[in-house]
Amino acid sequence: MTNIRIVLVEPTHPGNIGATARAMKNMGLSSLALVNPKEFPHRDATTRASGADDILAKANIVTNLSDALAGCEKIYGTSARARRLEWPLCTPKEAAVNIASMSDDAQVAIVFGRESSGLTNDELALCHYHVCIPTSGEFSSLNLAAAVQVIVYECFAATFNPIVKIDREEPLADNTELKGFLDHLYSLMIDVEFLNPAQPKKLTQRIQRLFARSELSKTEVNILRGFLSAIDNKIK
Amino acid sequence: MTNIRIVLVEPTHPGNIGATARAMKNMGLSSLALVNPKEFPHRDATTRASGADDILAKANIVTNLSDALAGCEKIYGTSARARRLEWPLCTPKEAAVNIASMSDDAQVAIVFGRESSGLTNDELALCHYHVCIPTSGEFSSLNLAAAVQVIVYECFAATFNPIVKIDREEPLADNTELKGFLDHLYSLMIDVEFLNPAQPKKLTQRIQRLFARSELSKTEVNILRGFLSAIDNKIK
Repeated sequence: MTNIRIVLVEPTHPGNIGATARAMKNMGLSSLALVNPKEFPHRDATTRASGADDILAKANIVTNLSDALAGCEKIYGTSARARRLEWPLCTPKEAAVNIASMSDDAQVAIVFGRESSGLTNDELALCHYHVCIPTSGEFSSLNLAAAVQVIVYECFAATFNPIVKIDREEPLADNTELKGFLDHLYSLMIDVEFLNPAQPKKLTQRIQRLFARSELSKTEVNILRGFLSAIDNKIK
Repeated sequence: MTNIRIVLVEPTHPGNIGATARAMKNMGLSSLALVNPKEFPHRDATTRASGADDILAKANIVTNLSDALAGCEKIYGTSARARRLEWPLCTPKEAAVNIASMSDDAQVAIVFGRESSGLTNDELALCHYHVCIPTSGEFSSLNLAAAVQVIVYECFAATFNPIVKIDREEPLADNTELKGFLDHLYSLMIDVEFLNPAQPKKLTQRIQRLFARSELSKTEVNILRGFLSAIDNKIK
């Protein structure tokens, strides 16, 4: 569980930060990152943490989401509803089973958005998977700390009652390595006139989604980049 | 879900009553009973309910647990730990699956104890089942509303049984299409001298494994083959 990082993006209410810390500690998690919290540290955070102050004290406070995700190999973004973005979408249980199967070997981040408006599409695009907590259609907005509670509860339940352990002999590529590969790929796509650099978004999002799903290992990224370089050498 | 009643026994903090109402409404529940709440109605309850005021307004306020349970056929008591009482003990998931299977026909109550000390043994003895939310042994005391959130989330999930829906709107490529793509890829790998045709096996097996895992759709195979053709055109 120490490889699982909870990231709150621009939380407004310090009480929610405290309740998040408490929920994390209840479920054996300890790594919290806060992106631009409106008020922190704050008395309400400490009160609601109710003994999980150690998590608040060592929270990593950063100014943008990318910094909060440094070193993470798998990133889950929580979303209140299915977006137009066609991204791998999973339930909390599915996410937790997946996380439990790999968190021995990989750094995992679970990202939660603002109380009022969740994560932006750009922030969601940084995530490899989107997690949606099922709710009543008539009243779907969960409290931030309640959403954290559901997810960390599922992670705890999946870790201590693991259903499947996916065998990952090779270490997964981290986010920087994956991005390096994708940038190389897009650059070649432009060189061979397959990708229109004026209108890249639709195609690159599709490709990004495909490779997020593929869970590339470091070795596989190296192989694929070697292949791209071999093509570069032929066409230049 | 209308047959499921949430019962809070002597809650101290009105904020927890409000957060309970919100969690209930999020998960499609509406029937709340309060046994001797310390402060209610209260501003903190309304604030934390955040739009679930209707549940607060029609909450049934009683002076003892028996009254709160009037008319209930099945009663679940939540407990932070396994007690000496030898009672049928279940996980939230097991309780929720059970409740979902009978709540069309039976009135069900789920009882939560005080923030400080939970339910007494006498109160637990009124319950037919005990539910224990698994937590880290080192820090096991859940916030009251967080415990409610976990339970009602499981009830909702069990009732609506959200099936695995991992974004598969597009039909998957069949084996012939996948093989066509891989053959095209290997051929290009040979053309750019990345794959040694005399010793292909190790690399092609890896690539095959990678794309088997990726679960390519028909559209994605077409896109990737279009990209390979664009490269072919450049190098030939």
